[in-house]
Amino acid sequence: MPGELRPVLIDGRWRPACATGSFRAFDPSTGEEVGDAFPVSDWADAQQALEAGARASEALLDVPADGIAAFLERYAERLEARADEVVAMAALETGLPAPTRLAVAELPRTTNQLRQAARCAREMDWARPVVDVSSGIHSCFGALDGPVVVFGPNNFPLAFNGVSGGDFAAAIAAGNPVIAKAHPCHPGTTRLLAEEAHRAAEECEMPVGTVQLLYRLGHAEGERLVSHPLVGATGYTGSRAAGLHLRTAALQAGKPIHLELSSVNPVFLLPGALDERSAEIVDELRNSSLLGTGQFCTNPGLVVIPAGPGGDAFATALVGLLAEAPAGLLLGRGVLRNLGDAVRVVREAGAELLLGGAPVEGPGFRYQNTLLRVSGQRFLERPRAFQTEMFGNACLIVVAADREQSVAIARQLEGNLTGCLYCHTDGRDDAAYGAVVRVLRRRVGRLLNDKMPTGVAVVPSMNHGGPFPATGDPGHTAVGLPASMLRFAALHCYDNVGLHRLPAPLRDIGPAGRVSPAKPPSHR
Amino acid sequence: MPGELRPVLIDGRWRPACATGSFRAFDPSTGEEVGDAFPVSDWADAQQALEAGARASEALLDVPADGIAAFLERYAERLEARADEVVAMAALETGLPAPTRLAVAELPRTTNQLRQAARCAREMDWARPVVDVSSGIHSCFGALDGPVVVFGPNNFPLAFNGVSGGDFAAAIAAGNPVIAKAHPCHPGTTRLLAEEAHRAAEECEMPVGTVQLLYRLGHAEGERLVSHPLVGATGYTGSRAAGLHLRTAALQAGKPIHLELSSVNPVFLLPGALDERSAEIVDELRNSSLLGTGQFCTNPGLVVIPAGPGGDAFATALVGLLAEAPAGLLLGRGVLRNLGDAVRVVREAGAELLLGGAPVEGPGFRYQNTLLRVSGQRFLERPRAFQTEMFGNACLIVVAADREQSVAIARQLEGNLTGCLYCHTDGRDDAAYGAVVRVLRRRVGRLLNDKMPTGVAVVPSMNHGGPFPATGDPGHTAVGLPASMLRFAALHCYDNVGLHRLPAPLRDIGPAGRVSPAKPPSHR
Repeated sequence: MPGELRPVLIDGRWRPACATGSFRAFDPSTGEEVGDAFPVSDWADAQQALEAGARASEALLDVPADGIAAFLERYAERLEARADEVVAMAALETGLPAPTRLAVAELPRTTNQLRQAARCAREMDWARPVVDVSSGIHSCFGALDGPVVVFGPNNFPLAFNGVSGGDFAAAIAAGNPVIAKAHPCHPGTTRLLAEEAHRAAEECEMPVGTVQLLYRLGHAEGERLVSHPLVGATGYTGSRAAGLHLRTAALQAGKPIHLELSSVNPVFLLPGALDERSAEIVDELRNSSLLGTGQFCTNPGLVVIPAGPGGDAFATALVGLLAEAPAGLLLGRGVLRNLGDAVRVVREAGAELLLGGAPVEGPGFRYQNTLLRVSGQRFLERPRAFQTEMFGNACLIVVAADREQSVAIARQLEGNLTGCLYCHTDGRDDAAYGAVVRVLRRRVGRLLNDKMPTGVAVVPSMNHGGPFPATGDPGHTAVGLPASMLRFAALHCYDNVGLHRLPAPLRDIGPAGRVSPAKPPSHR
Repeated sequence: MPGELRPVLIDGRWRPACATGSFRAFDPSTGEEVGDAFPVSDWADAQQALEAGARASEALLDVPADGIAAFLERYAERLEARADEVVAMAALETGLPAPTRLAVAELPRTTNQLRQAARCAREMDWARPVVDVSSGIHSCFGALDGPVVVFGPNNFPLAFNGVSGGDFAAAIAAGNPVIAKAHPCHPGTTRLLAEEAHRAAEECEMPVGTVQLLYRLGHAEGERLVSHPLVGATGYTGSRAAGLHLRTAALQAGKPIHLELSSVNPVFLLPGALDERSAEIVDELRNSSLLGTGQFCTNPGLVVIPAGPGGDAFATALVGLLAEAPAGLLLGRGVLRNLGDAVRVVREAGAELLLGGAPVEGPGFRYQNTLLRVSGQRFLERPRAFQTEMFGNACLIVVAADREQSVAIARQLEGNLTGCLYCHTDGRDDAAYGAVVRVLRRRVGRLLNDKMPTGVAVVPSMNHGGPFPATGDPGHTAVGLPASMLRFAALHCYDNVGLHRLPAPLRDIGPAGRVSPAKPPSHR
């Protein structure tokens, strides 16, 4: 039986798992199982991965930044060479469109991310070196003590995958080995990615155990993994409930864990904006909210519109557009079930159903495009219930009676990845913008103006983070290099330590004799 | 009865506490209560402080960086004007020497820290602005959403006090109001400091509620405070047990909390160093370990020496010096009791008592200068027990059989604020240094070479942090501006937001700070 299962990647080789069970992916378009059988690992697999990861963590101390960068770049090349197979597998397992998304957007984003990480590793300013010759005290960031465990989410099988995505790239670039935990939605895709990562690591003579892969673990084993003494830190992107369980376990053991959880990504449409260009905005919202069948972390799930004819017309137009659009595929049966449950919670709290509200009959994982509406007053009576994340193609409109109520709504918002405001271009909404943004600004990681939140550019100024429950820490971002690397690094200070004993970012910083916190070091 | 209690500072005025009890400070030299009676606050006080703090947090959005800096500077001036009274009160309540420590070291350090924080607030590079004109996405750090609660420790009544110390300065400079929780050891000192902070805030027209003070809270109220929806974050310096309870409460509610907990600060004396200058090093160690009666966060509590005549002679010399030195005052009855308990744990684990090991008879809080010794082999059998923090004037010597055992000892260390290595100046210890430092480096925040760990310079390159249990996050420091400010800040990203709507650090950034320096962000 275990012989029929795909092997796991532990300690530098693909070997049969110590399996307690098995699973297969589903084709979301049919709801049928597809592809190979993959193992659910016993604790023994995790333990061996941890021990190998700890050895790799120490061995990586001897790998110069150039070597790490070369590995990331070689991995990107190998992914490109196998692009067709990777994209086809990801499309099969996730139902995401290959030509319009996976091939042209997500795979290039993934390889771009790996190359950006390589550049950051090489340039070393990610380490934020501070040289203070007068005190003889210097500091910079360095790799953690132990491997980084990465749990990837279901919704980006390549760009956020535990073995190829943003957390992987950031952790490796900062000098850490990675133990990837695949998402059970797309084990076949993850296998292909890990094969290329492993080959690239071998070609570049990276330490054995730099990249490891487990397909699946029980809940108890997952909690044991993130809290193990040999772990450096964990990156987790996924559901709030599972993330909080992992966090409790990790933090009790004193182990850092970085979470990206749920977000409803509020959008405030100010009155002047609708007066000026309602049709344009309704189109933007429709496109943003249906992207990936609404399964984006930054999906606009809560839209605040003004009461009155402008708002009413907007809602009517949105219903029309969403009704015309085909219901897309959802990533899995669990997503379909959770979406139905979440819509029920929001309806039971008192929202009116304008469209959809039920699964699509027939094979495959589909839910009707769904729109709900609630008054601002009712929202304010039960703000938590109305912020239930409806992960998928569902959206809640909140009708604000006036500017004061818009501000009151903003004040009840939980932490989010993003928040948007749309204004009239002539400045007539400026006072309303000021009143709402004062509150909204500090409830979100990324504030947008006249722009929808989906689409997270991989640029150094990006913040893909935000206050809880969007993430566990409002000072960190999961996207945007080099800042995202700091989640997987420790601050290292050197006091009275001679130049020849300093790490590269401090040795090579350039002209001595001054504190230079912002100055990047010269290339080696 | 409540009329006899000192008032608390809430919402801009000193008013009687809603008290559930009262307490007084102790004179450590007599063990007798001294000074005024102070209130233990009911939850109602905390609730009002939170509400006022939330209003202040929003009002601070309108205070420019110059205003915040002026307040910090005015506060420093006012402290200097009242220095004699502050120092006398702190000496009375803590037993710390006024002339050699409080007046000449700790108060100047405190005012210097406030002024450094003022400078950082003004210069704004603490916010790490990233401007990316080509993507139209910019980011910088900004204040949190809600007041920062600061729990100060017992051992630095001025420089780490909740209402004047490093966390206070960092939180205010980042634009947050502070709710200080006094340490019950020195309420009178804290009152004097808060009076000056409050007057300076009034003079500088800071928002009402920018500085608030509660003297004491029950455990349940403390946990409720740090986990309250209106809180921005918490800074806590103190015991591990209390800190972990607060952390559990805060994190379950999604509230950031920054902890500085226990540390044994290992010192490795390599063989050549003792061959070369044993007498010099034993003197350094004596001085460092008795500083503040051993009640420094960075007190060298675990010293690894080589087996053999050099190590034996060192231990004998250290016993001699410590036996000659008078036993200093401890900060409180709890410290005395905990020190006795900790010494007992270390002895029961198998350490040999070389000196001391009992309280000093007579009035006041004193414990004999205490030295214990254990073999490396025994240490490795019970590494956790031998890392019990003996907070006070007690130290454990670990005798390492050889280099391999030194490395094995390093490998069993928990996270620490500091780690030191002493080497021969001719390089003969280089191989041993390399072997130990490879492991030690990542177990400590600050690595020292040929230098004792006490004395934490307030410089930008300082890291007063380290892996758990030294702190809760190896990426943050509690000392060293501006880095320490980032604990009390959130990353704020602006996507497609016009220049006139950006915060000052992004609006005023020079071309050097731009990621893509093409042209300034255009107005829409």
